[in-house]
Amino acid sequence: MSDPATPAADEPVRRRRGRPRKGESDARDRILAAATDEFGEHGYDASTTRAIAGRAGVDPALLHHHFGTKADLFAASIGAPLRPDLAVPEILTGPRERTGERLVAYVLGMWDSPTVGPRALVMLRTSLGSRRATPLLAGFLRRELLDKVAAGLEAEDAGLRADLAASQIAGLIIARYVLRLPDLVAAPTDVLVVRVGATVQGYLFD
Amino acid sequence: MSDPATPAADEPVRRRRGRPRKGESDARDRILAAATDEFGEHGYDASTTRAIAGRAGVDPALLHHHFGTKADLFAASIGAPLRPDLAVPEILTGPRERTGERLVAYVLGMWDSPTVGPRALVMLRTSLGSRRATPLLAGFLRRELLDKVAAGLEAEDAGLRADLAASQIAGLIIARYVLRLPDLVAAPTDVLVVRVGATVQGYLFD
Repeated sequence: MSDPATPAADEPVRRRRGRPRKGESDARDRILAAATDEFGEHGYDASTTRAIAGRAGVDPALLHHHFGTKADLFAASIGAPLRPDLAVPEILTGPRERTGERLVAYVLGMWDSPTVGPRALVMLRTSLGSRRATPLLAGFLRRELLDKVAAGLEAEDAGLRADLAASQIAGLIIARYVLRLPDLVAAPTDVLVVRVGATVQGYLFD
Repeated sequence: MSDPATPAADEPVRRRRGRPRKGESDARDRILAAATDEFGEHGYDASTTRAIAGRAGVDPALLHHHFGTKADLFAASIGAPLRPDLAVPEILTGPRERTGERLVAYVLGMWDSPTVGPRALVMLRTSLGSRRATPLLAGFLRRELLDKVAAGLEAEDAGLRADLAASQIAGLIIARYVLRLPDLVAAPTDVLVVRVGATVQGYLFD
């Protein structure tokens, strides 16, 4: 409805949600990287936004402007390496009979990536290690993944189906990347996409 | 071979491995409970055997006599509430076509128990929260569960099958008891035994 040539009164808020400007984007990335490091070293409970701002070399006020509270920043840090907002719509709109395989391939691709995997692992460990942080991870999963998956299912038990699929995906991540069970670490990606993908597909659609 | 009326020279060691005497059993239980509390409050890395002994009201030498190092004590604390040494043989020797269901029913029974579940949850969180503690959990799983399951399979990829089954069971525990995904928390046990049991069964035998 708005004319793109005339900035609306809420422009600063809109820009925060859309593509950030270059300098702003650098500061955001530095804050997110510093947050991951700080949370990883000290755990969620002992980390402070002040220390994270110091580590990123920004004013604490700028951190709060971009990310809000420590809980908000933590939730943003979970999603930052994985960017489910980009991947999830594509996974869900492709051919339905291979949705399970696409979900598993996406997860393995992210976690096997040398740039994304280590940051995602830090955020997962930190989330599971703290009673206060775990609900932030659960909220992120619900918002970014489970609700979207469940909305695409026609079954009466869509919520349970989405949760069961999530349990298998969470277990794959824990077993392969956290516990590092040897045969699961050694298994080729395409074998896991077929075997675990079939499970996820069954939970969602059978 | 030995006459029960004449104690053998290795009696103290044998007793430690078998059923402990009453007073000894109390001290062991107090140490294990104190360990779970201490690890849960301070994490694996910051916990000390001295503090755990103090909490249990025993001499540190007694703790080391019964449990060895901090890593040994941690591994014992993971298993203490679950007692897989009692349950696993029974699960694996029952009718093969329902092995998956028996495994899932055992896991849910333990984790839903008000005495066992909370202690198991503390040990799981602590294990996943520390890089040093995670391999102790992985080692426990391999020794007490995965190797025994894999030994009963004839397939060439027995190790991968056991690891895949473990990934689903680990994911069920994480999703229902740690992340507390609402539809999985609300699901009746028998529904989960059937649905998740079928997945575990498929990984092991199909």
